[in-house]
Amino acid sequence: MKQSQLFMPTMKEVPTGADVVSHQLLLRAGYIRQIAAGVYSYLPLAKRVLHKVETIVREELDKVGAVELTMPAIHPAELWQETGRWDLYGPEMMRLQDRHGRDFALGPTHEEVITSLLRSEINSYKKLPLTLYQIQTKYRDERRPRFGLLRGREFIMKDAYSFHASQEDVDAMYDKMYQAYSNIFTRCGIDFRPVIADSGEMGGKDTHEFMALADVGEDTIAYSDSSDYAANIEMAAVNTNYVKSNEELRELEKVNTGSAKTIEEVSELLAISKDRLIKSLLYIVDEEPMLILVRGDHELNEIKLKHELNASTVELASSEKTHELLQVEVGNVGPINIPSTIKVYADHAVAAVVNGVCGANESEMHFKNVNIERDVATVEYGDIRMIQEGDVSPDGKGIIKFARGIEVGQVFKLGTHYSEKMGASFLDENGKSKPMIMGCYGIGISRTVSAIIEQHNDENGIVWPKDVAPYAVHVIAVNVKNDEQRELSEAVYERLKGVSIEVLYDDRKERAGVKFADSDLIGMPIRVTVGKQANEGIVEVKLRHSGETFEVHESELVEKIQQLLK
Amino acid sequence: MKQSQLFMPTMKEVPTGADVVSHQLLLRAGYIRQIAAGVYSYLPLAKRVLHKVETIVREELDKVGAVELTMPAIHPAELWQETGRWDLYGPEMMRLQDRHGRDFALGPTHEEVITSLLRSEINSYKKLPLTLYQIQTKYRDERRPRFGLLRGREFIMKDAYSFHASQEDVDAMYDKMYQAYSNIFTRCGIDFRPVIADSGEMGGKDTHEFMALADVGEDTIAYSDSSDYAANIEMAAVNTNYVKSNEELRELEKVNTGSAKTIEEVSELLAISKDRLIKSLLYIVDEEPMLILVRGDHELNEIKLKHELNASTVELASSEKTHELLQVEVGNVGPINIPSTIKVYADHAVAAVVNGVCGANESEMHFKNVNIERDVATVEYGDIRMIQEGDVSPDGKGIIKFARGIEVGQVFKLGTHYSEKMGASFLDENGKSKPMIMGCYGIGISRTVSAIIEQHNDENGIVWPKDVAPYAVHVIAVNVKNDEQRELSEAVYERLKGVSIEVLYDDRKERAGVKFADSDLIGMPIRVTVGKQANEGIVEVKLRHSGETFEVHESELVEKIQQLLK
Repeated sequence: MKQSQLFMPTMKEVPTGADVVSHQLLLRAGYIRQIAAGVYSYLPLAKRVLHKVETIVREELDKVGAVELTMPAIHPAELWQETGRWDLYGPEMMRLQDRHGRDFALGPTHEEVITSLLRSEINSYKKLPLTLYQIQTKYRDERRPRFGLLRGREFIMKDAYSFHASQEDVDAMYDKMYQAYSNIFTRCGIDFRPVIADSGEMGGKDTHEFMALADVGEDTIAYSDSSDYAANIEMAAVNTNYVKSNEELRELEKVNTGSAKTIEEVSELLAISKDRLIKSLLYIVDEEPMLILVRGDHELNEIKLKHELNASTVELASSEKTHELLQVEVGNVGPINIPSTIKVYADHAVAAVVNGVCGANESEMHFKNVNIERDVATVEYGDIRMIQEGDVSPDGKGIIKFARGIEVGQVFKLGTHYSEKMGASFLDENGKSKPMIMGCYGIGISRTVSAIIEQHNDENGIVWPKDVAPYAVHVIAVNVKNDEQRELSEAVYERLKGVSIEVLYDDRKERAGVKFADSDLIGMPIRVTVGKQANEGIVEVKLRHSGETFEVHESELVEKIQQLLK
Repeated sequence: MKQSQLFMPTMKEVPTGADVVSHQLLLRAGYIRQIAAGVYSYLPLAKRVLHKVETIVREELDKVGAVELTMPAIHPAELWQETGRWDLYGPEMMRLQDRHGRDFALGPTHEEVITSLLRSEINSYKKLPLTLYQIQTKYRDERRPRFGLLRGREFIMKDAYSFHASQEDVDAMYDKMYQAYSNIFTRCGIDFRPVIADSGEMGGKDTHEFMALADVGEDTIAYSDSSDYAANIEMAAVNTNYVKSNEELRELEKVNTGSAKTIEEVSELLAISKDRLIKSLLYIVDEEPMLILVRGDHELNEIKLKHELNASTVELASSEKTHELLQVEVGNVGPINIPSTIKVYADHAVAAVVNGVCGANESEMHFKNVNIERDVATVEYGDIRMIQEGDVSPDGKGIIKFARGIEVGQVFKLGTHYSEKMGASFLDENGKSKPMIMGCYGIGISRTVSAIIEQHNDENGIVWPKDVAPYAVHVIAVNVKNDEQRELSEAVYERLKGVSIEVLYDDRKERAGVKFADSDLIGMPIRVTVGKQANEGIVEVKLRHSGETFEVHESELVEKIQQLLK
């Protein structure tokens, strides 16, 4: 492609409002333009990258037997009402009415549409399993669209759905998809981790998020420094092999702690380390009060708490509510001598505290030498704390570290949540009607483009991995007014095209400095510069990622480039 | 692809509500399913056809230097307000509000978006011309969505826009696009005609529609049986070389025609052929009355009238209005002795009528022996009648015939309509600011799929042209439980795949009759049947379009098929 024909409006300045490097570079290098908050045009260079990513996705999904279709973006409200999500989705779902006043959603996802499609057509185990996918535009009216393609309101997604007659079958497809996703992100040049994730409101159980590691990521990942364990910190299990010290148990003692309320204050006042304090938090769990205990140096994980208690809602009680139930201030609450109507639920770590400290349910008072199993009548235990950097990995291998990640994909076992609500059933081998078992599998295609750039850039611009670069080679004529340079550039351009190498040729009448700066900014893997040595047939080949250069005679250029692209 | 993995729900019965053959076959053969009126899912076979058509479109557009991008489907209202189309578009444009109450359109077309994109980035003639295209989902809330993909509310379109510094340049691109479109539809196997079309409200001038000939088409085309002249009948010029008979002019004579009012009645009563009657129609042209004359056997073309008079509105006067202005009934209106405030405008054919008949502006009276040029003071002439079958072609070559067509594409010189309204200007070589000159070029991608089927089907199903078929070859194992048949089928399937032939393999445990019926219905160009002769290594090759069959030994199969696909 001749650059003069390409629409590629580059900018020198960092545009205002673009806070992350991928957003800045997509704008500066002329890949995207915004037309409304979170709504972008993909200009020709971006379109080529999207096409590359989509091709990789298609190839890997085809390998696991998934089949492509395309579903509409406008969905009749009735389908979403069947699953209750018409109301549940809230303002994030864009809605409209047609000329007859009928309600439609702009699809944020397609579980309802695909389930309705299959329930009408598939009635026997003989026609299962089926795995279908689409690469399609999705709509979510984000409260805070930001970071360019990382969080848009109109974006491109690959979503796949699988339908099965048995759990073994969905398990097998899940594993295949997990592998396909690993292949996809590897081929895209992304440094990623598949992490154990929260199934949220989707009603399923097993789920992994594929996280591209990047400081701008909105999610925190806990991973082992010596194994492949990784989880979203919200979901990370904790290694509960706590070692209890063999110190002698001392007698329970009530002490006046005055105005000391926080863990820090009490620890300092009593000169007792925080890991011997017991934090007591009054929660309202599905409308019932419950006292939750975690160690003073730990933090409660509400998501894990919710899962452990199998609760719909868990909410910290207000100070008013605490006073009403226990007649004491929040900082002096404790598990000893509380009314038997209030259950006590503790993190495993609390059981291992010897001669600890907790609130005494009395103004200005704490207990010392607390030993929960001795001093509290009934306590239940679970894994309810946040994992911390430095913890032993849950799999026992290595130490936990934290990293930030961008969620680029997710695989999910949906179970029968949608098929039951929507009556998508099949007759099994014995003629018995059963709901189809479903899996779903998403990749944020446009987001992936941003994630690649977050990981592949330098101070001069984007540095594309070769499998997703818009063009493999960027040919630059230093001075197109010089006949030798122009003719050699064009010859080189035609010759590379002739052997099916994707090449962009900067044929513009611009200064060399502008051309080089634009070239670094847009980031093709290989640059071929045709300059003063054109009269000797010599060009310069430069690798964008390493800066390495080679002087190559034009007669050997094709071979050299083919070799570099391998 | 193994058919057991493909989602391809075929139906035996013709579905109710599907009135045209392409709609019936797309449903019956499992290519599409409706989720709301005019809103469809493209199932895997359709997705492959769309992909084929899109690839042809991309290849031909790339050849003429067009570059692909993707613009969003949701457009801020402000852009449409700039051109006034936010109000003009009416209920056909789907609209929505985001969570902040801001108005958006679901794009029915993209002139506004692309013009706003380029006006911000292009400021010099040096960066022109630019031709950009996208293949993207469009939305039009049709009053009567129907005929499947022929008139949908969510559909796939290729839309291209070109921007130029000179008229010569847009003319050149228009011609290139015209050629590209001809190549595209030829490669899609479509019997089409590019026809002169109406520029409607778009503000441009030159425009051609590409019409796929089909009886279900909503447009009528007038074409020459001996040249390449073709036009939408609304726009067809008429050959005005009327031959005036050399009969002697007789004296004007008023006759009582009683209650005879229509052309038929007066012709019969006076025993004078209709081509000697002069039809007089009182019109209101931009609020002024005007008497319009056409020959009795001709029909007025209001669109041509509007163009000839350069009028905004032309409307037939009501009988009340006619009575008010001429104190006579509609059937007795005529051009002789009407008030001089009412201009007379006649079709060229009227000038050639010798001794004709027209109304006398008097109850129950007509004139005989009318010779317009002699009897009416001031008459202007223009080409304002509908073309008719049997007319001489406007280019003088051959005779006009009519055909019905489906509009699958349109090329259009927009001029500066949008660039002026939206301030998309550039500095020319002399530093003078000028509006960009634009062209636009559309292809209905999903509609094209329907048009192909309208032209390529038989009583058993679809008969795909090979360049757009989902698969080139359909391999059928007559009985998969027979080891020899199954093994040979699989070997043949793998071998064809191995040489990059796209092949669908019916591996289902269905009866042979079901398989053959499905195979004809879905319509792949070549069928390979592996049946009883499998033990001798012999298979049957059958061409879908001709029904021709060949017995081929498996060892020669690949070569035979490669030869047939050429």
